[in-house]
Amino acid sequence: MTIAAIRWDETIGSDGRGGIRLLDQTLLPGQAVDREITTTDGLVTAIQELAVRGAPALGVAGAMGVALAMDEGARRGWSPAQVQAAVERVRLARPTAVNLAWGVDQVRPLMPQGRVVVLSAAHRVAAANEAANRELSRLGADWLLARIDRPRLRAITHCNTGALATAAWGTGFGVLCELHERGRLEIVYADETRPLLQGSRLTAYELADAGIDHVVQADGAAASTILRGLVDVAVVGADRIAGNGDVANKIGTLGVALACADAGIPFMVAAPWSTVDLATAHGGDIEIELRSEDEVTHVAGALVAPQGSRGFNPAFDVTPARLVSAIATERGVLEASLGQVPRDVS
Amino acid sequence: MTIAAIRWDETIGSDGRGGIRLLDQTLLPGQAVDREITTTDGLVTAIQELAVRGAPALGVAGAMGVALAMDEGARRGWSPAQVQAAVERVRLARPTAVNLAWGVDQVRPLMPQGRVVVLSAAHRVAAANEAANRELSRLGADWLLARIDRPRLRAITHCNTGALATAAWGTGFGVLCELHERGRLEIVYADETRPLLQGSRLTAYELADAGIDHVVQADGAAASTILRGLVDVAVVGADRIAGNGDVANKIGTLGVALACADAGIPFMVAAPWSTVDLATAHGGDIEIELRSEDEVTHVAGALVAPQGSRGFNPAFDVTPARLVSAIATERGVLEASLGQVPRDVS
Repeated sequence: MTIAAIRWDETIGSDGRGGIRLLDQTLLPGQAVDREITTTDGLVTAIQELAVRGAPALGVAGAMGVALAMDEGARRGWSPAQVQAAVERVRLARPTAVNLAWGVDQVRPLMPQGRVVVLSAAHRVAAANEAANRELSRLGADWLLARIDRPRLRAITHCNTGALATAAWGTGFGVLCELHERGRLEIVYADETRPLLQGSRLTAYELADAGIDHVVQADGAAASTILRGLVDVAVVGADRIAGNGDVANKIGTLGVALACADAGIPFMVAAPWSTVDLATAHGGDIEIELRSEDEVTHVAGALVAPQGSRGFNPAFDVTPARLVSAIATERGVLEASLGQVPRDVS
Repeated sequence: MTIAAIRWDETIGSDGRGGIRLLDQTLLPGQAVDREITTTDGLVTAIQELAVRGAPALGVAGAMGVALAMDEGARRGWSPAQVQAAVERVRLARPTAVNLAWGVDQVRPLMPQGRVVVLSAAHRVAAANEAANRELSRLGADWLLARIDRPRLRAITHCNTGALATAAWGTGFGVLCELHERGRLEIVYADETRPLLQGSRLTAYELADAGIDHVVQADGAAASTILRGLVDVAVVGADRIAGNGDVANKIGTLGVALACADAGIPFMVAAPWSTVDLATAHGGDIEIELRSEDEVTHVAGALVAPQGSRGFNPAFDVTPARLVSAIATERGVLEASLGQVPRDVS
């Protein structure tokens, strides 16, 4: 099957404009249910609830969100300022992934040209992401296979970076799929990725769908899996890459990187160039989203900590460039830990 | 309140012999329910289900299990060989924590002298563990306060090492309590410790009970909490310490140690000397218990991974001695990463 996280669907609603169709990722893998979205409030809620998530998919959501705000404004008789305010709410719905604001900014200048032009541009954002993902996956796989002398690689990944996190194909997951299609992937260890279990719920779902042998493990098992020599490489995505090569990604990524450095195996970040934020000089400047305590103190709706115990729930961490062996982008692979950093090659 | 993980209760059963009373830790923190155990099968089940867990508490369970087997044998008319077989089943109920077998071995030679002598010896095992915990906590706190120049320390811990994991007081948790009682503890970051959430369920329960300020975080947050400078020290327990100072402890401990080494803060292992296994030369020789896949693929009874996705569930990892700043025991503090290792001081 083809997994599609987000697309514009002309059949939604009754006025012919359509809306955004999301696969509601909060319900996977148990249920595959779409959300049909025709309002910016609905989109903001979907983004904040993580019904749609993943940096590149958020880029598409941002771009399509501009068209959505224009349509909603037309329906409701909003002033231009009200439409712009709605666009801005979408742009700021989550702070860490640069792609969301980037997606908005790609198409917002076209608003004076009308919804058709904006929507076309949003479709181009999605198409460009898929093309970038395919290219960075090819380059990332080439880089790994040139350096690891094994017939089939054993990989660890963290969080979800597949079609569910992108317009299509995936970033880190795309590299794994590329290896798989070349017959060069043996197994994937998928960290479950607490608190929201994107690894066990989403990555395992996509791995199963792709027919890739895999196991799910607790995040705490990652370091041991790496130091015991059970994997040859770690491949993850990114939510924002600073000019100096520091990488913000799902909480837990840093621990994977530390273990890879200790074990002497490559730690690869795979992301389209749109994830690079040259306006952010280094990782310390990246705003880390602090999400609800309940996501930690509860599991599957059940309270697992004592009443009154607080949760600490940063959604992302920052891996310093010195721990990043490679940043695979569609423009090439940067060996960040050796000093090849985005600000020098843009 | 006083938390007691395990004790012999003369009032259990109808024949005056009594049995083992456990606080069923699988139900905490929601319910505090005891299990009354009068059979070795019941004890083995309780150990394997983790109704009682924690290396020192398992030592007590092993010692009391010998008395339990003798009583059961008397009731059921077992031969001496049958009683020994029951003792052996208890001894091997879980493989990684050395204390379980050690507890059995402490009292088994006394079996010819009768149940009263065996039971007294088991009580002495428990009393000795409490005394050891108090002393190692004092020495561990002294060591930390001599090296960290802060009025009140901020600590991270992994899994549960308090009264619930020991005969009383705790090991790593005991060090934290000692700091708290001296007014030198600011806050504890408790890793939730997937898959079985001993951190959020048990450690937070004990921290709340002790009135210690704390937060619960996903295990993946540990590295970031440490590298961001939010804590001054990590304090954990141990299930087995090899002669060269390698430490087997709950899965996820290794990642905490790697982050502490990178951040340059102390990583302290606190454990009674009974956790040292000189017969194990190094960590590579420690058998790592592989538990049910379901513990990873399910959370709170709900399937969170796709049907058919496998789980990988090693219960422990091994932290090499080079990453262990200090092993706090009742015999003193060994600076393992500097070459002070158990085999040289026993």
